[in-house]
Amino acid sequence: MSVISLLTDFGTDDEYVGLVKAVIYTIAPDAVIVDLCHRLDPHDIPGAALLLANAWPYFPQGSVHLTVVDPGVGTQREILAAQCDGHLFVAPDNGVLTPLLDGAPNARVVKVHDRSYFRPEISRTFHGRDIFAPVAAHLSLGVELDRLGPRAQGSQLHRIELPAPQISAAGELVGSVVWIDRFGNLITDIEAALIDRVKSAARGRPLTIEAGRRRLSGMVDSYAQVEPGKPLAIIGSRGTLELAVNRGNAADLFGCRRGDPVRVRPEDSGMRRTPL
Amino acid sequence: MSVISLLTDFGTDDEYVGLVKAVIYTIAPDAVIVDLCHRLDPHDIPGAALLLANAWPYFPQGSVHLTVVDPGVGTQREILAAQCDGHLFVAPDNGVLTPLLDGAPNARVVKVHDRSYFRPEISRTFHGRDIFAPVAAHLSLGVELDRLGPRAQGSQLHRIELPAPQISAAGELVGSVVWIDRFGNLITDIEAALIDRVKSAARGRPLTIEAGRRRLSGMVDSYAQVEPGKPLAIIGSRGTLELAVNRGNAADLFGCRRGDPVRVRPEDSGMRRTPL
Amino acid sequence: MSVISLLTDFGTDDEYVGLVKAVIYTIAPDAVIVDLCHRLDPHDIPGAALLLANAWPYFPQGSVHLTVVDPGVGTQREILAAQCDGHLFVAPDNGVLTPLLDGAPNARVVKVHDRSYFRPEISRTFHGRDIFAPVAAHLSLGVELDRLGPRAQGSQLHRIELPAPQISAAGELVGSVVWIDRFGNLITDIEAALIDRVKSAARGRPLTIEAGRRRLSGMVDSYAQVEPGKPLAIIGSRGTLELAVNRGNAADLFGCRRGDPVRVRPEDSGMRRTPL
Repeated sequence: MSVISLLTDFGTDDEYVGLVKAVIYTIAPDAVIVDLCHRLDPHDIPGAALLLANAWPYFPQGSVHLTVVDPGVGTQREILAAQCDGHLFVAPDNGVLTPLLDGAPNARVVKVHDRSYFRPEISRTFHGRDIFAPVAAHLSLGVELDRLGPRAQGSQLHRIELPAPQISAAGELVGSVVWIDRFGNLITDIEAALIDRVKSAARGRPLTIEAGRRRLSGMVDSYAQVEPGKPLAIIGSRGTLELAVNRGNAADLFGCRRGDPVRVRPEDSGMRRTPL
Repeated sequence: MSVISLLTDFGTDDEYVGLVKAVIYTIAPDAVIVDLCHRLDPHDIPGAALLLANAWPYFPQGSVHLTVVDPGVGTQREILAAQCDGHLFVAPDNGVLTPLLDGAPNARVVKVHDRSYFRPEISRTFHGRDIFAPVAAHLSLGVELDRLGPRAQGSQLHRIELPAPQISAAGELVGSVVWIDRFGNLITDIEAALIDRVKSAARGRPLTIEAGRRRLSGMVDSYAQVEPGKPLAIIGSRGTLELAVNRGNAADLFGCRRGDPVRVRPEDSGMRRTPL
Repeated sequence: MSVISLLTDFGTDDEYVGLVKAVIYTIAPDAVIVDLCHRLDPHDIPGAALLLANAWPYFPQGSVHLTVVDPGVGTQREILAAQCDGHLFVAPDNGVLTPLLDGAPNARVVKVHDRSYFRPEISRTFHGRDIFAPVAAHLSLGVELDRLGPRAQGSQLHRIELPAPQISAAGELVGSVVWIDRFGNLITDIEAALIDRVKSAARGRPLTIEAGRRRLSGMVDSYAQVEPGKPLAIIGSRGTLELAVNRGNAADLFGCRRGDPVRVRPEDSGMRRTPL
């Protein structure tokens, strides 16, 4: 029995996710299916890429992770299957595996070509049901990766470029908001270790954190460490800097959207801007 | 172990779907439950009918398909159980099974009367939990259809009339938008075979496809065959004509709603209207 | 094999629910997970408390019910595990178990302290994944409640005060709207037995029921007993008074929100107000 996680932009207003599961259970009746997320924005490849890279390590060894954000459905884009660290992945070759594979240099990747693992009829618009689901189901049953098709070289794969936090010469760390969750929390790409580097340079001065129309001083260890309605900075569940509001919505309070910059620097570091 | 699919208008904001599952697992602990869709518009019987008719063939043999869109809950409306092609169905007698049964003349249908398969206490407003769920669970355990109640004749059943595409004397095919999915794709009731008939009549001329404020020439094989933001016509995952926008929202661009007409005809066929 | 129900305010737009399941299946691969509800308003402790108290009895004996509405995550708030009537419960100590425990004086409650049942790394913001999920998984495997930590006395626990219906000296029953479901139905805290008391006092006169800008006379046995679009009062699926509209939305028609009062009294009882 093997877990199959599903990450799609299908939403839950239609029959699409249900049909993917129907096909999986037809092939692999003992599969355990976990909905990782289906409410990605349509075609949100970077969002899916980061969510997947963050989520898969929490699943059991041997899990199959199926990601279908596939605006190229029906074109000649390849479908990839990959194996790394005892987990399996199936996804279109559109960059959605970039962060995963960048972090797993020993991953084996194949192009999925063998139609005997597909449904007999392939629609033009729903390879999630007709190709991805049966391939994931067969992998969960133990089909060897290499039986699906030829090896793919990393250099052949489509990549997406994700913004990476930078530290300026003056010591200011600039990252960005990469996800806004249902609570309105602003999740950034600034890992805790980077914060620690700025902290070291600060030599005891607190950190100033700026995003949108807010500037914070220092970080906290829990949302409730500030008054309800007040903003805060914390290391969130992805291990990165998160801006939040105790019992409130940070996206609204900060006025931030995905992609907006987030700045971290030692206080009074000579880079202070006009107060907002 | 048997799959039970759930199709309801319960939404996912309340405990209703969870309670249906709780009751099923109490009776059939090994059931595998698949959420087909719960976000139908409240009381959307035609939408449920078409979604079910399209979806059930993708499920494993022996599946039980539970459909609860039930504005008549608590009245004398019957509850039906049906068997066809190795699948089982449970639904209120309000027409939600019409397309399914129209396509399955050999289906056996019974009226669900035997209260020993219900929960002991029946609420006035939630037969999904108190009747439908336990009946579906018992069917999944192998209870014979005829033990649930007397046979129902097709002529006794409530029917819904669904619009059917028509071909005019002049050769214009007129169907309608029967579903709009989360991507904004306009899914019609015009099956591929009907399109082929118009194509044959067109003798090589491309097809003109009209819906809302848009007119298209010809069909494509993938969304990405047109530029991002551009509209297209394609055979979608239900095997019917679908109007879409590459990486965009067709419902917005075409200005269409469910029920709106969609016209297909050979180009320059003498039926051309004033350009929109 | 044991059912684990999940009740959270995580929503379904993010990976949070998926990660909770990933952690559970890593520890308890045979668990059967039921999503009770994830779309509670953020931090809606009273809503979660009532939903849980109403829902758990429908689950199989031996189920583990995990409730994570946890604005105090990362503070010193306790995490509780409880056992009553053959069911197990895990939740933060913030009052979300108040109605459950008030109705179960023999419940055993412990404070969850033993970190060997947690994930090795505990984030500041997502105890659902790092503590609650693994604890629920271990309980579903049969770990004894008392191994998790010391007994908690009822008097030590955080409580929430929920409004309770009152009967005035003049015989008017005043309750409130405690939930509005996806259909717009107004679910109150007025149990059927309370209605019966007012009915007895009415000696055959019908009941007047008032909420928002509407006043109804008498109750019905099914939504369809009134014309489409018309309001009605009925005993709903929680066993309490529910105000609804046949094929319509009562929240809109009555102009009611959660917390608004609902009044029930014998007609012409001398308390009639100016017609609305």
